[in-house]
Amino acid sequence: MIHDSLSTILFFALLVGCAPKEKKGNDLPKKPNIVLFLVDDMGWQDTSVPFWNKKTPFNQRYQTPNMERLAREGMKFTQAYATPVCSPTRVSLMTGMNAARHRVTNWTLHKDALQPMEVKHKDLSFPRWNVNGLCPNLGLPYSVHADALPKLLKQAGYATVHVGKGHFGAIGTPAEDPLAIGFDVNIAGHAAGAPESYLGKENFGNSETSKDSPWPVPGLEKYHGMDIFLTEALTREAKSSLEPIVDGETPFFLYMSHYAVHTPIMGDDRYLKKYLEAGLDSTEAKYATLVEGMDKSLGDIMDYLEEKQLSENTIILFMSDNGGLSVHGRGGEPNTHNLPLASGKGSIYEGGIREPMIVKWPGVVQPGSTNDNPLIIEDFYPSILEMAGIKDFNVVQTIDGKSFVPLLINDGPDQRKTRPLFWHYPNEWGPNGPGIGAFSAVRLGDWKLIYYHLDESYELFNIVQDIGEAHNLAETETEKVNELAKVLRTFLIAADAQFPSHKSTGEPVAYP
Amino acid sequence: MIHDSLSTILFFALLVGCAPKEKKGNDLPKKPNIVLFLVDDMGWQDTSVPFWNKKTPFNQRYQTPNMERLAREGMKFTQAYATPVCSPTRVSLMTGMNAARHRVTNWTLHKDALQPMEVKHKDLSFPRWNVNGLCPNLGLPYSVHADALPKLLKQAGYATVHVGKGHFGAIGTPAEDPLAIGFDVNIAGHAAGAPESYLGKENFGNSETSKDSPWPVPGLEKYHGMDIFLTEALTREAKSSLEPIVDGETPFFLYMSHYAVHTPIMGDDRYLKKYLEAGLDSTEAKYATLVEGMDKSLGDIMDYLEEKQLSENTIILFMSDNGGLSVHGRGGEPNTHNLPLASGKGSIYEGGIREPMIVKWPGVVQPGSTNDNPLIIEDFYPSILEMAGIKDFNVVQTIDGKSFVPLLINDGPDQRKTRPLFWHYPNEWGPNGPGIGAFSAVRLGDWKLIYYHLDESYELFNIVQDIGEAHNLAETETEKVNELAKVLRTFLIAADAQFPSHKSTGEPVAYP
Repeated sequence: MIHDSLSTILFFALLVGCAPKEKKGNDLPKKPNIVLFLVDDMGWQDTSVPFWNKKTPFNQRYQTPNMERLAREGMKFTQAYATPVCSPTRVSLMTGMNAARHRVTNWTLHKDALQPMEVKHKDLSFPRWNVNGLCPNLGLPYSVHADALPKLLKQAGYATVHVGKGHFGAIGTPAEDPLAIGFDVNIAGHAAGAPESYLGKENFGNSETSKDSPWPVPGLEKYHGMDIFLTEALTREAKSSLEPIVDGETPFFLYMSHYAVHTPIMGDDRYLKKYLEAGLDSTEAKYATLVEGMDKSLGDIMDYLEEKQLSENTIILFMSDNGGLSVHGRGGEPNTHNLPLASGKGSIYEGGIREPMIVKWPGVVQPGSTNDNPLIIEDFYPSILEMAGIKDFNVVQTIDGKSFVPLLINDGPDQRKTRPLFWHYPNEWGPNGPGIGAFSAVRLGDWKLIYYHLDESYELFNIVQDIGEAHNLAETETEKVNELAKVLRTFLIAADAQFPSHKSTGEPVAYP
Repeated sequence: MIHDSLSTILFFALLVGCAPKEKKGNDLPKKPNIVLFLVDDMGWQDTSVPFWNKKTPFNQRYQTPNMERLAREGMKFTQAYATPVCSPTRVSLMTGMNAARHRVTNWTLHKDALQPMEVKHKDLSFPRWNVNGLCPNLGLPYSVHADALPKLLKQAGYATVHVGKGHFGAIGTPAEDPLAIGFDVNIAGHAAGAPESYLGKENFGNSETSKDSPWPVPGLEKYHGMDIFLTEALTREAKSSLEPIVDGETPFFLYMSHYAVHTPIMGDDRYLKKYLEAGLDSTEAKYATLVEGMDKSLGDIMDYLEEKQLSENTIILFMSDNGGLSVHGRGGEPNTHNLPLASGKGSIYEGGIREPMIVKWPGVVQPGSTNDNPLIIEDFYPSILEMAGIKDFNVVQTIDGKSFVPLLINDGPDQRKTRPLFWHYPNEWGPNGPGIGAFSAVRLGDWKLIYYHLDESYELFNIVQDIGEAHNLAETETEKVNELAKVLRTFLIAADAQFPSHKSTGEPVAYP
């Protein structure tokens, strides 16, 4: 399939007369540059770009003119998914594996350390999941050994630049350093999944009092003491890091992985006043500034590519890693921050997993288009490799993802009724909320089946008709439950998925 | 004076017929129990008890029925002061020394470590202040050697109980453990001045991921994983710790030192809904729950004393350690959270230093009374010793505080025109705001003179006529400036106060 669709792209590109520009004296078309702009904890509605079938109050609240610009120049995916928590998503992205298979099913930080809330759970014993995250080598216990995306891109001649949040491997393991998984450059990435502080004035959390803490952002010393927000500092460093690359022949892969909009929810003073004056709750106003600062970064990078005359040969992918936070820490009522979607980060409901995704590929993707095909985070791995023209790659891991390149060119069979997507979270995240807990789930066509490990119960929703997942049809649509349970079970067995056990009986949770 | 006023108390107590109850078969009056209920970062208006001459919107917002009850049973001080930051206040409280003398002028945490914001200050070099805090022994550099309040109480036969925030000495110094300064019992106190988390469900911040952090609250393991707020857990532990004491002959000193209402501003779910429904900003609603939870603790302790029939022989002092936070981290506009007072924590304006103070002393203090005399935090040391009947004590340090016991019984000369109060902060706190920065100040009578170290400038306010400090009279009332500057200078020279230096010239800041 990879061969086929890449040929189709080139054919399509020639047809529409927008083939990537070739350097003089070079007969081969230059490989496209690829910018993967990944936002942390950004919800599906945290933007002025409507991803639903109508503009929502959140689309009115948030101001993301550069996402609007990207959507005008690219394709908007309305049903793009990730996992509900950051580490599983990031490992799926970098390996092409589903979380059930790579087993980094919860968030990572310290080597060999289980989450305290998992150890203390009243009713469930949790499996020894891969708490050490991704590992480029064999032999590290509790880690998934895989050939990571940047490694393959680097081998294919790409300059690979990591900016921002890493969070690939636990502290004290190789992949705590993004260089270990194939990046040539690392700016501010390490094992932790959140910044101690967004403020340059607070040295991004670095101080005498924080030297033993994992949370202070590393490597941005030149901005310490300055009145600058982390998002802005990362953007400036990203542009600087591209300087030696962009004038040469080498294509680049920029992994622009913002710490924003993860907690701590801190105000970016460039934007705060207007949101407060609009009457927003202070936490929500600060959150809106995190969103707008992230959007400015996107615009700055787009401007930079234009200045350098690289726009026409650069693919930009915009994505988030899980749903928007809607529990403790947000303003207002919990479970309302991703409406019309239910719940948020940590949940298997749509609010926890549906993401704002946009892809711009000049000459290939139709500007201003929209695509309703479901896809999931592990699809980025084969897609980006295909975009880079990397074929017949041999990697140590089993790839679950499917390239979405055919979707970008409206080629190939419609997968909307035939492609199942899977989630597996045999873990405890911590906070309480709707759809939060240990679960497995499958989406196929219009339907989503959720299997809760704690009581081995089901919920069935028609996602297309009931996007808010208010009407559980598991009692009435028993045939659909059985059909989807079988699809889910078959996948989980094939992926050798781990399950919790019931403390009361010692028995593992049954397969769906 | 100590002799005189104690005699007067006993005389007064006999007169009004409410002398402390004597145990049968014991001719000596039992020493009173003393509860010092100290709240962290609570502002002067963070209560339904009006401390101004009228009820304010904040008095309407916050619900503190137990403070109201305490005020009905005791005396309210409308002009009680602390320092603008926690460590200087707590060291003054425990030593009787003014901050200019004890030199723990900024907040402490790590041994020998200067604050990063002090190291990086653009214009000022800061002195080597006592970053290691209070020390019971001689020989620790950068610490103040003093005989602490609980040590003297213990020597006089008191059982001394520490509950909550300690923050007396830096990590790795003796006084990081409250037992080192004379407490018999320590519950949850250590070197840090804030909790990592208020939630039992979050183990108060203790986790595999926080073991190197100074912020997780120690010693409350039995509440880990429980749905309980820190304030409630501390209250239960305080009552438990008194159980073996209250039935015997031993008087006790309970230092009930809440972590609340310091950041992190986290919601106490017992109260959150009603504040949100009242339309409060989410941060402000959470803050109000911190206040109400603290108030419930006060009520629970008062109830406990009544149950145990100890109320009549127990003095309760209510106090906060600095003004309410009004910068980064609060909802709404900065500098509005202590109105009618200007600014908040960290500032020399009244919002940073004026505290809600109440003293209940059955049979001695007139219930429901109000006292407008200015007093300051170091006065608690000689006052509590006097309450405990401890006379002629010999301590290593020079005591700046004056007992306010005469004020409690309306005895002695009116100090309102004659007692100067002093503040000295040759430091950088971090956040920006009105009246925040390196300064010295004196209040005498109706006037307050502020001397800013950075530009060696003055502000003069008539605090009684202009409580919001909106009208700086330094230009017009030059005679008053000169008079107060001399009083301030004389004190600072006598106390051997430290000053910053100007980086531009290397010269120390001149005396006022």
